[in-house]
Amino acid sequence: MDRLACYDCGETYPFGEAARCSCGEPLWFETDPDAVSWPDTGGRGAEAGAAGHDSLWRYESVLPAATPVGLAAAAGGTPLLRAPSIEPADGPRLHLKLEGTNPTGSFKDRGTAVGIGRLDGPIGTVSHGNMALSVAAHAAADGREAVILVAEDTPDSRLAMIAQHDPHLFRVRGDYGRLYEDTLERDLGVAFLNSDSPLRVAGQKTVAYEICEAFRPDAPDAIVLPVSSGGQASGVWKALRELRAAGLIEAVPRIYLAQAARCDPIARAFRRGAARVEPVTGEPTAAVSINNADPPSGNRALAAVEATDGAVASVSEDALLAETDRLAADAGISVEPSCAVATAAVRDLTESGDLGRDEDIAVILTGSGYKYGTPGAGTPSVREIDREDVPAAVRELST
Amino acid sequence: MDRLACYDCGETYPFGEAARCSCGEPLWFETDPDAVSWPDTGGRGAEAGAAGHDSLWRYESVLPAATPVGLAAAAGGTPLLRAPSIEPADGPRLHLKLEGTNPTGSFKDRGTAVGIGRLDGPIGTVSHGNMALSVAAHAAADGREAVILVAEDTPDSRLAMIAQHDPHLFRVRGDYGRLYEDTLERDLGVAFLNSDSPLRVAGQKTVAYEICEAFRPDAPDAIVLPVSSGGQASGVWKALRELRAAGLIEAVPRIYLAQAARCDPIARAFRRGAARVEPVTGEPTAAVSINNADPPSGNRALAAVEATDGAVASVSEDALLAETDRLAADAGISVEPSCAVATAAVRDLTESGDLGRDEDIAVILTGSGYKYGTPGAGTPSVREIDREDVPAAVRELST
Repeated sequence: MDRLACYDCGETYPFGEAARCSCGEPLWFETDPDAVSWPDTGGRGAEAGAAGHDSLWRYESVLPAATPVGLAAAAGGTPLLRAPSIEPADGPRLHLKLEGTNPTGSFKDRGTAVGIGRLDGPIGTVSHGNMALSVAAHAAADGREAVILVAEDTPDSRLAMIAQHDPHLFRVRGDYGRLYEDTLERDLGVAFLNSDSPLRVAGQKTVAYEICEAFRPDAPDAIVLPVSSGGQASGVWKALRELRAAGLIEAVPRIYLAQAARCDPIARAFRRGAARVEPVTGEPTAAVSINNADPPSGNRALAAVEATDGAVASVSEDALLAETDRLAADAGISVEPSCAVATAAVRDLTESGDLGRDEDIAVILTGSGYKYGTPGAGTPSVREIDREDVPAAVRELST
Repeated sequence: MDRLACYDCGETYPFGEAARCSCGEPLWFETDPDAVSWPDTGGRGAEAGAAGHDSLWRYESVLPAATPVGLAAAAGGTPLLRAPSIEPADGPRLHLKLEGTNPTGSFKDRGTAVGIGRLDGPIGTVSHGNMALSVAAHAAADGREAVILVAEDTPDSRLAMIAQHDPHLFRVRGDYGRLYEDTLERDLGVAFLNSDSPLRVAGQKTVAYEICEAFRPDAPDAIVLPVSSGGQASGVWKALRELRAAGLIEAVPRIYLAQAARCDPIARAFRRGAARVEPVTGEPTAAVSINNADPPSGNRALAAVEATDGAVASVSEDALLAETDRLAADAGISVEPSCAVATAAVRDLTESGDLGRDEDIAVILTGSGYKYGTPGAGTPSVREIDREDVPAAVRELST
């Protein structure tokens, strides 16, 4: 369980020895094939302290050795909901995975939970928002020091949210991609749990275990998710490989990734038919959390798509803003624009025939929109009224 | 299952016939004693569409007849976490119920889920925030019209959050308490699901079922929660009565309620030793969501406290703001000030000897703080730094 492997060249390393494969690609944990099975109902949740809640520790047998601490016991175990109201006419059937119900409101809590349960001492991360918040909160819950490095253009409102968990918070001027690499390559005395670290990818893979377990004995036809660094896409692929190898799913769901057109290096490589992702010069987009011009696990994400016969979609700025509004108004789900790209992509992929009308599609809604306000919305539509006039106004609506 | 009863005078009514008992007190659903049992593992969750997630429908046998629709299948099933980092020195042991992980970030989703699953047609509510958001989102998810009446002083940021779910949103000038009664007493052609409606109280009671089930075969010594209208307190009391009557718990946990000192009508009545709550003239408080000067279920909440040998605590403004910060910084949990009153009260109640050093105390953390910003915090503490200087700065921290 404690060896890392390269998905690309197959080289392996003991955990802790290498941040990247010598071929340059990111690593992930090897999993003992005998450990891959559907857990008995209940799992580790209760023991871990999150009684009544089936957390990601349900899949502990396929995770690297780690001890749930603090908030970790509350990560994962999120709902998967049908959402007929936003399905394209005549299908496919959409199943929405509500990752915004994690303790800090995003999918990032899964990787943080596993990482902080394995690593000792101070913990760090390089992030624009969701991961920064997640690491800061989990570190606080476990009484650890946290070092959070955010990019220069991170909005003040996000900083205030992160700062409430009392980390060492740095806003860094300079190249963000290089900063990410700095924290991997140099020994800073702090364990950095960045977006494509093997511990994080192990935690993130549990979302695909949950999705597939919900479909037992079948599996969804496809899984659609936003992509930024490629860490979550890698985790999904890893899970599907493990489940297929163990014979727990018969066919591997196709993996579809969605990016904002204003910053879409992985989609561009996919359209070129390339095996390698090239950095782009992105434009500012409302999809802040996936605005990653040089994704560290981009090649691996691309490989996941190729291996499963999926695709990578680019979503226009107008479409992702409209989709953010639509999810709130028609499905009752508030998401950030970085998340709405996924259901927007479903529309395009259905149109193009990539997704079949009679298919079951799981969509990973990565994070809650409530914590980031409502960027798509203008002035709220509110009627000011006197109490005396309420009955007449309400009756008028219902007739 | 479809009869309502008065906790106070015992009168019963068919559901739908009365909004209040003729004695003036609120009603709740009668529960068939034979239906009260611990559910088989799994319950209704998967069937209801929220696969992998044990929602409140696990306790369907003790709920009024209702069908989970839309987001309802994702309500409840929240984590219960130990939080040693914020426990008073030498105990008691705190178990935090993270209600902020519900779909719209608060405990209100429980009552909304049951209410919207029972009522047809357009749905309404009178609320300052959490309940308004919850009803608007659940209505959107089920394709219903929603009529949301908010008080005149509701902040614009809250309105924008509610408005994204596209309800008929009214900001009402005039007496808020009267407005609440108007919607109960008059037929407006819209089913109003207000904070102490019997359907809502039925949904809210599931949180106490979850807490007690997590402690099986024991029960916590006490349950501490914030109180506003008294609806959630009523739900907790109802659950404990049912569980005790069925012999599923041996002793009834004591119920402790917490209010902000600036608006604490129930605490005042408790201190007076009165059986009836009198309206107060509250002052503005950061605990916006519990700023209820004339609680409609106040007498019932007080009865719950008296019947279980609990108490009602008032928390000063300074203490509730400090506690909001402390939960974020020391427990990694962001809550709104209206929620932090509960753990602040634990401190005072431990000091006073109400809570024993060796007791297990469940605290209901009613809602996430992420969606409301960070009112307790000032300017975030951030260091601005160049990328080149990061390694030295981080190394300095870790030595």
